[in-house]
Amino acid sequence: MTKPVFLVIGAGAGIGGHAAKRFAKGGYHAVLARRSDEEGLGRLVRQIEEAGGSASGMLLDVSDDGTIEDLVERIETDVGPIDTALYNLGAQIGNRPLSDTPHRTFELGWRLGCFGLFRLAHAVLPHMVERGKGTLLVTSATAAVRGNAGQHSHAAAMGGRRMLCQTLNAEFAPQGVHVAHVVVDGSVDAPDTLGKLLGDKFEAYKAHKGEDGVIDPANLADTYWHLAQQPRNCWTHELDVRPFTDVPWWNDNPPAAIDTKAKK
Amino acid sequence: MTKPVFLVIGAGAGIGGHAAKRFAKGGYHAVLARRSDEEGLGRLVRQIEEAGGSASGMLLDVSDDGTIEDLVERIETDVGPIDTALYNLGAQIGNRPLSDTPHRTFELGWRLGCFGLFRLAHAVLPHMVERGKGTLLVTSATAAVRGNAGQHSHAAAMGGRRMLCQTLNAEFAPQGVHVAHVVVDGSVDAPDTLGKLLGDKFEAYKAHKGEDGVIDPANLADTYWHLAQQPRNCWTHELDVRPFTDVPWWNDNPPAAIDTKAKK
Amino acid sequence: MTKPVFLVIGAGAGIGGHAAKRFAKGGYHAVLARRSDEEGLGRLVRQIEEAGGSASGMLLDVSDDGTIEDLVERIETDVGPIDTALYNLGAQIGNRPLSDTPHRTFELGWRLGCFGLFRLAHAVLPHMVERGKGTLLVTSATAAVRGNAGQHSHAAAMGGRRMLCQTLNAEFAPQGVHVAHVVVDGSVDAPDTLGKLLGDKFEAYKAHKGEDGVIDPANLADTYWHLAQQPRNCWTHELDVRPFTDVPWWNDNPPAAIDTKAKK
Amino acid sequence: MTKPVFLVIGAGAGIGGHAAKRFAKGGYHAVLARRSDEEGLGRLVRQIEEAGGSASGMLLDVSDDGTIEDLVERIETDVGPIDTALYNLGAQIGNRPLSDTPHRTFELGWRLGCFGLFRLAHAVLPHMVERGKGTLLVTSATAAVRGNAGQHSHAAAMGGRRMLCQTLNAEFAPQGVHVAHVVVDGSVDAPDTLGKLLGDKFEAYKAHKGEDGVIDPANLADTYWHLAQQPRNCWTHELDVRPFTDVPWWNDNPPAAIDTKAKK
Repeated sequence: MTKPVFLVIGAGAGIGGHAAKRFAKGGYHAVLARRSDEEGLGRLVRQIEEAGGSASGMLLDVSDDGTIEDLVERIETDVGPIDTALYNLGAQIGNRPLSDTPHRTFELGWRLGCFGLFRLAHAVLPHMVERGKGTLLVTSATAAVRGNAGQHSHAAAMGGRRMLCQTLNAEFAPQGVHVAHVVVDGSVDAPDTLGKLLGDKFEAYKAHKGEDGVIDPANLADTYWHLAQQPRNCWTHELDVRPFTDVPWWNDNPPAAIDTKAKK
Repeated sequence: MTKPVFLVIGAGAGIGGHAAKRFAKGGYHAVLARRSDEEGLGRLVRQIEEAGGSASGMLLDVSDDGTIEDLVERIETDVGPIDTALYNLGAQIGNRPLSDTPHRTFELGWRLGCFGLFRLAHAVLPHMVERGKGTLLVTSATAAVRGNAGQHSHAAAMGGRRMLCQTLNAEFAPQGVHVAHVVVDGSVDAPDTLGKLLGDKFEAYKAHKGEDGVIDPANLADTYWHLAQQPRNCWTHELDVRPFTDVPWWNDNPPAAIDTKAKK
Repeated sequence: MTKPVFLVIGAGAGIGGHAAKRFAKGGYHAVLARRSDEEGLGRLVRQIEEAGGSASGMLLDVSDDGTIEDLVERIETDVGPIDTALYNLGAQIGNRPLSDTPHRTFELGWRLGCFGLFRLAHAVLPHMVERGKGTLLVTSATAAVRGNAGQHSHAAAMGGRRMLCQTLNAEFAPQGVHVAHVVVDGSVDAPDTLGKLLGDKFEAYKAHKGEDGVIDPANLADTYWHLAQQPRNCWTHELDVRPFTDVPWWNDNPPAAIDTKAKK
Repeated sequence: MTKPVFLVIGAGAGIGGHAAKRFAKGGYHAVLARRSDEEGLGRLVRQIEEAGGSASGMLLDVSDDGTIEDLVERIETDVGPIDTALYNLGAQIGNRPLSDTPHRTFELGWRLGCFGLFRLAHAVLPHMVERGKGTLLVTSATAAVRGNAGQHSHAAAMGGRRMLCQTLNAEFAPQGVHVAHVVVDGSVDAPDTLGKLLGDKFEAYKAHKGEDGVIDPANLADTYWHLAQQPRNCWTHELDVRPFTDVPWWNDNPPAAIDTKAKK
């Protein structure tokens, strides 16, 4: 196979799936990996193929030892060199007080949110280093830069993820591997994650947010594509994205009343 | 005079005045400078003297050329070596849209919020360097680390102030001068600033914030004192303060509803 | 004229000129404004026209009152609606100790680095708001996020610039105007700025940095283009760029010896 | 027992031991917990007692399930209410490339650097909430705010630790519990950690750093004491410390040559 490979771990119908479509459209073979929903996975692969692209999919539980490692090796051996990998697993479990965040929940958050990325890096970066090029894209969240109430598990995992992206960049950028950390600071129109979280309120939620009030994952995928195509003399390590109507995480919301004016 | 001198620029009845009291209590001669209200200034000086401390006051308009420079030279010549200086001028003018922020307002914000500190540093740091020791404390605001809606003038001034504190620290810390930037991320019980802004609603405001819901400037003054006493092997450059009931600037307020959950 | 207008203030042969070329290539009429070098300006305009694009240029001293304001009004009246404006003026003057940074130098740094952007925003954003769309791109520097030794003027100006970008974004993003702050954390192959600073050592400098060791402004222009094309449901407010060989500003350089290991 | 209890996890002869001494001197009963070196532990307890203070010690392996939890319960039952707890465990293992950072090393870093703090919080914060007051101090490192080369395990653990401190603060500050995150951005004169790392080069290292070139943990302990005594209307959540001779993590070191001038 002569196409470069785009691997996405966490390939639902939102960011992951649209990134796969974007890279397939750009000439990559997309490998989509996700934990469950074989039917949804097959649908994404078919959509890519019907659009003239090349893709394959597989189910994989990232929390199992060896799964990521095996996947990378199989792709490198059987499919082709992984040019770009996207770690797209979230670890959001909603807001829970500490008393409702058991040890095992906190640990699982770390396994999915931080350790899985470490394992992917361990498996795939040596291949990229050998080739002197490659891109590791990491979808991240506002929780990577600030810890809100109720986010013990998620924020600790994402804060670790962000620092890990920096240490990976420090070691691997000079070896030709582009590591990019994308802070998604807004809701995404993602049926498999936010959609499932909100259930039958999802459509009302999007309507309430208004036109362009929710990130269209196809648009975010264009930014991922741009990052992966930046020449190595001009690499972005971190950027944020949000809908134009959303208040950035660092700003007060709602607009400051007198109460907060003093500390502006 | 054998007492070390504590100079505060912006000595109202809030942070500035209480800092002067704290340093006077600790054995310093306090020099209080403020733009107006000779009576209020005299009252602060008398309170310090009645408590057994040593203090003097003078009115001074920081936006006039030469005022800070003259003050520093007069103190160094007539009163004694300035051991610790506190730049305590704010530049908060409330929330104003860009259309209601004229050029001259933006420039005045910079003159008070950033340029005045630069001028103080220019005047006082060479004296401290000559003595191989000294402390420059800078009261700052949340606007130094994030720019909220309506804060064009204030945030631009404070963002410059914070970077200036870093460049001053980089040059002068190795020469024995401690530069500390204090991010005041909460309302202060300051009759001359917040009090005047709120007018006859000030008491109701404080009542609404509840017990310990507003920073007591006497307590903040203890933290300033601690900073100024840190031995040079263990200096703090930046810290934040807020009441226990206040939401830190980086957290969502109010507690996340479903709308913001997705970007936690 | 039916083409959307791209206005760049600070249009040298580096980032500004290449951004103009990129937007012209994308169908914009580019207006290039710079302080001096009419010949260089004419050359850039001719290059764009020879490539089939549309451009015009004018000399303008940003530090003069009314210049930016007049320019914007003339373009809006005579050329067409400004769709995207790029504020590309730097304020780097090299490393100078405080004693070698006079008041007027510090003030000039602010005038070019911060106040000019405020004035551009004042002039152009109301037009964009009226149209419900537009983009304000701001070239920025590492000095906007940390203050190095010797950078008193530059860092204070850039720190103000960054906070101003946040307050502009907070007010104008919900009105459809995209504000993006680009942290250029590496050397740029810019003959008119870095080239002049280094003089006849410029070529040796670039050779020393190695292949792709300096940012190619044409590549950075592609990122500016991408930012300006992001749909409003997926806007980036801040990103960084650097060559793959450069150590990001937050990392130790050179690689940690034992001395710094303890504080990693 | 009527004394309030100060619990330190990670009580070596450096920060932990000196913090215990400081709080004992201030009227607390200090409980010192560490993994090994019963003799060293006994020595610290005796030093506190000989100085007229009250202390007890116990060995404990934080990575074992239930150890922290049991310790907290035993103290609360047998010794007295824990007023202030200090999590002082580091997770620094030196610089290692990714290839030399096995999965188990990365996981251990997280267990000590992040999960242990989560477990301590789980165990001790409910007691503090019940009493409506308490303090959780967390020693942290520069690796919590930036990821250097070779620091995969340490930085990921510390980045998680910092975000966890923010989520704990967000939930517990309004309930009267003060959470403070201390970024130690310099070498500490700590025989049991840095001393062991450097071995017989430790004294030469300190000599090379010069007078006051290394943080004296007794001085840092004074800052911990100050934090724990701040009234709840004026709490600090985060501060940094370093020797006056040390370059802060955000500044270039060594002083900028021409190479880095362009990106100041």
